[in-house]
Amino acid sequence: MRTVDVAIIGAGTAGLQAYAAARHWTDSIVLIEDGAYGTTCARSGCMPSKLLIAAAERAHEARGAKVFGIETGEVTVDGPAVMRRLQDLRDHFLEGVVAQTEAIPEARRLRGHARFREPGVLEVGGEMLRAQRIVIATGSVSRIPDQLREGAGARLLTIADLFELRDLPESVVVFGAGVIGVEAAQALVRLGVRVRCLSKGGDVAMLTDPVITKTAHEILGGEFPVELDAQIDEVRNDQDGVHVTFTIDGEARTETFERALVATGRVPNMGGLDIENAGLKLDEHGVPLSDRATCLCEAGESPSAVAVFIAGDAEGNAPVLPVASDDGRIAGDNAGRWPHVKAHRRKTDLFITYTKPSIATAGMRYAQIVKSGRRFEVGEASFADQGRAVIEDRARGLLRLYGEWETGILLGAELIAPDAEHHAHLLAALIAQGLCAPEALGIPFYHPCTEEAIRTSLRDLCAKLLLDDLPVERMINRK
Amino acid sequence: MRTVDVAIIGAGTAGLQAYAAARHWTDSIVLIEDGAYGTTCARSGCMPSKLLIAAAERAHEARGAKVFGIETGEVTVDGPAVMRRLQDLRDHFLEGVVAQTEAIPEARRLRGHARFREPGVLEVGGEMLRAQRIVIATGSVSRIPDQLREGAGARLLTIADLFELRDLPESVVVFGAGVIGVEAAQALVRLGVRVRCLSKGGDVAMLTDPVITKTAHEILGGEFPVELDAQIDEVRNDQDGVHVTFTIDGEARTETFERALVATGRVPNMGGLDIENAGLKLDEHGVPLSDRATCLCEAGESPSAVAVFIAGDAEGNAPVLPVASDDGRIAGDNAGRWPHVKAHRRKTDLFITYTKPSIATAGMRYAQIVKSGRRFEVGEASFADQGRAVIEDRARGLLRLYGEWETGILLGAELIAPDAEHHAHLLAALIAQGLCAPEALGIPFYHPCTEEAIRTSLRDLCAKLLLDDLPVERMINRK
Repeated sequence: MRTVDVAIIGAGTAGLQAYAAARHWTDSIVLIEDGAYGTTCARSGCMPSKLLIAAAERAHEARGAKVFGIETGEVTVDGPAVMRRLQDLRDHFLEGVVAQTEAIPEARRLRGHARFREPGVLEVGGEMLRAQRIVIATGSVSRIPDQLREGAGARLLTIADLFELRDLPESVVVFGAGVIGVEAAQALVRLGVRVRCLSKGGDVAMLTDPVITKTAHEILGGEFPVELDAQIDEVRNDQDGVHVTFTIDGEARTETFERALVATGRVPNMGGLDIENAGLKLDEHGVPLSDRATCLCEAGESPSAVAVFIAGDAEGNAPVLPVASDDGRIAGDNAGRWPHVKAHRRKTDLFITYTKPSIATAGMRYAQIVKSGRRFEVGEASFADQGRAVIEDRARGLLRLYGEWETGILLGAELIAPDAEHHAHLLAALIAQGLCAPEALGIPFYHPCTEEAIRTSLRDLCAKLLLDDLPVERMINRK
Repeated sequence: MRTVDVAIIGAGTAGLQAYAAARHWTDSIVLIEDGAYGTTCARSGCMPSKLLIAAAERAHEARGAKVFGIETGEVTVDGPAVMRRLQDLRDHFLEGVVAQTEAIPEARRLRGHARFREPGVLEVGGEMLRAQRIVIATGSVSRIPDQLREGAGARLLTIADLFELRDLPESVVVFGAGVIGVEAAQALVRLGVRVRCLSKGGDVAMLTDPVITKTAHEILGGEFPVELDAQIDEVRNDQDGVHVTFTIDGEARTETFERALVATGRVPNMGGLDIENAGLKLDEHGVPLSDRATCLCEAGESPSAVAVFIAGDAEGNAPVLPVASDDGRIAGDNAGRWPHVKAHRRKTDLFITYTKPSIATAGMRYAQIVKSGRRFEVGEASFADQGRAVIEDRARGLLRLYGEWETGILLGAELIAPDAEHHAHLLAALIAQGLCAPEALGIPFYHPCTEEAIRTSLRDLCAKLLLDDLPVERMINRK
């Protein structure tokens, strides 16, 4: 039986990072992949979605040019051309990743499906492989509720399917208002597709602050119908389309679409891994329990000398590239240095949804802070009259910045705003440094920049934290 | 004779900030203005220039939409509509500033031209005013070389004049490739105006790094002719236009334009102030010498009990709003607290030029670091193949980040890049915290974002500073 120090299952973002990190420690390493090389990011995630959004953004900006004194004639969308550019550049990015993967010596790459036979033993394409340390980096797959799979039939699209279309559909019902759902829905509507977004639970993207969620719902809802608490009564399809019957506010209606996009979340891809043979403690979904600081999985009942790590989307945390990349690095490093495992400090959280205005969170999210029981204040800044945003005709949005009561330390922020993706980087950097609000006001803000709204929110936060000179009556009347 | 604690000459950005800061200390204060209320920023600076650029940007984006699969028909520019929106919104911003100024009680506002009669005594519109502390905040004016004033005659425009036009000119020769020159030149060319930019001395905007300057010249030069070292032989005007004869590389040529925009710098506005009576030490241009930490002017030969402060463009430093605003706050605070003057810590430098791609510097500029004699390394990141920039068809630019050799501490950066205005804020925040390069790599970067180029430059800097594991041969062969 072939024996290696480290076996990595999955050559996606987490797996490739794990390989690079483990490689510092050992030559005896194998990277296993059963599908085509390439990452979710490049094939069906970050890159193609931003390509779709880039085209949508151009169409939207061109339509809105007249207010600036710019005449464009009618703006039309060449669907096949949009998809061609998307797929061409997507393939370009994908080729880069594939080349990087194939640069790994062949002896350290294994093609085939991996299954656990027993702790420390994998079966890969009929061959047995023993590994002292194993990294599970099998990624995630779209979660498809039975109602949609059965009801929408061949008209059902996952986000990966959407990016394979040769032309834009005439109409799409988007199930889910999470990150993928709202990004796709807004991009499609800006590309001339009739869209309805139906969701449950009331959330928008990764937002948890009810005030920002409401603002995001209002802004996005101004472009396309988005229902955050719809009851889906029936989904069926025939030659005319997919017919969706849904109830909003007690009223049922049926609408027909060419396609149904399922964006109801992603789940760890444990398919065919026979994870129950790995000797690990599993959660109710069959995903190994693991420690975020080390990526080490908890051993099951019978202790074994084999260490299993889990990284990236497979771990069940936020299925986004930066997390997968950090996870992979941590898991790979620890697989390499095993048994001297090291706790890696996690970076400050940063999440972005690429709608326009973009949605972002930096540091702790509102719900996390509430749950933590901390006493905190909220500094606010509206973009409705923000100078630069007014100049560019994109004055919509709201930033809420959370500061700890006792210390004034910045805890986190949620926002929907022009340039939010950039603001979130700046906010995350300030939060990462452990700054309190008055210290953060020491950084420079140029003029006129949308960043000035961050200063506004910091000043508001200082006032609410009583960190400026507050008149006594205002202090007494403080909520 | 009316006597006040504090007299502030000029109700622009610096003057208004000085008023607010001094007001914390005393009621006996007067704000003097001889022109219309309103700031340079709102009337003829930041705001109208960004409005012109916003229109230009929309036209440019619409013209470039086809590559994304978006058809627009011919893109045309409605000059009067462009100028109308610019002037309408400019007036809106201006009204805000005027209202803010007029909210100051009338007893504390004085209209009229101020002249120094003797130290501590001003003549304002025929009345004499004695002040224990005086803040000079008279702003700046466009520097107009005689050759242009005489040669271009009525066809000469300052940037303020440009924003008053009812329609766009057919053609404009822009003298100067500084911040105002390149912003205006690029905006005009994108709005369909024939433009040539002629400059001397080789600089572009506020850049000092020869590599970034070269990159900026190449990028901007791809859109309009920009000569950084042109000899202007003759400028004359007649009914056909302004005829400019200039020599480049030994070859003289004459070109005719409808208008000539002078953007050869701004100089402190000391006009009619009779500053020689103020009892201050003056530089060769007649501008008081002052201390940046306190804004206090140096007293002249005969000591007096009067304190004079100088703030904003009048000080002769970078004529940009954030500096004027900070200056005003410092000068006003110190005028208020006099004689207990306080040294205020200056913010990390941050300068932005709103071309596209935008140009920015954060922290120390290249030339400042060289002059300081520090040993430093340069981390680089190109945007030519930066993922997100490729997606959005704006993959051009370069970032150079400077780190101190002995400590790895980030000193400054210069860049021309998509989103440079945002990157510069993030870089300035990192520099302001005194972080060294490996520490800065601890902040999160999302994907795909143009911010990832900052990470690339940080990694490159770490490698060059030998802050990662460098093979010995590379270390030995190090430049």
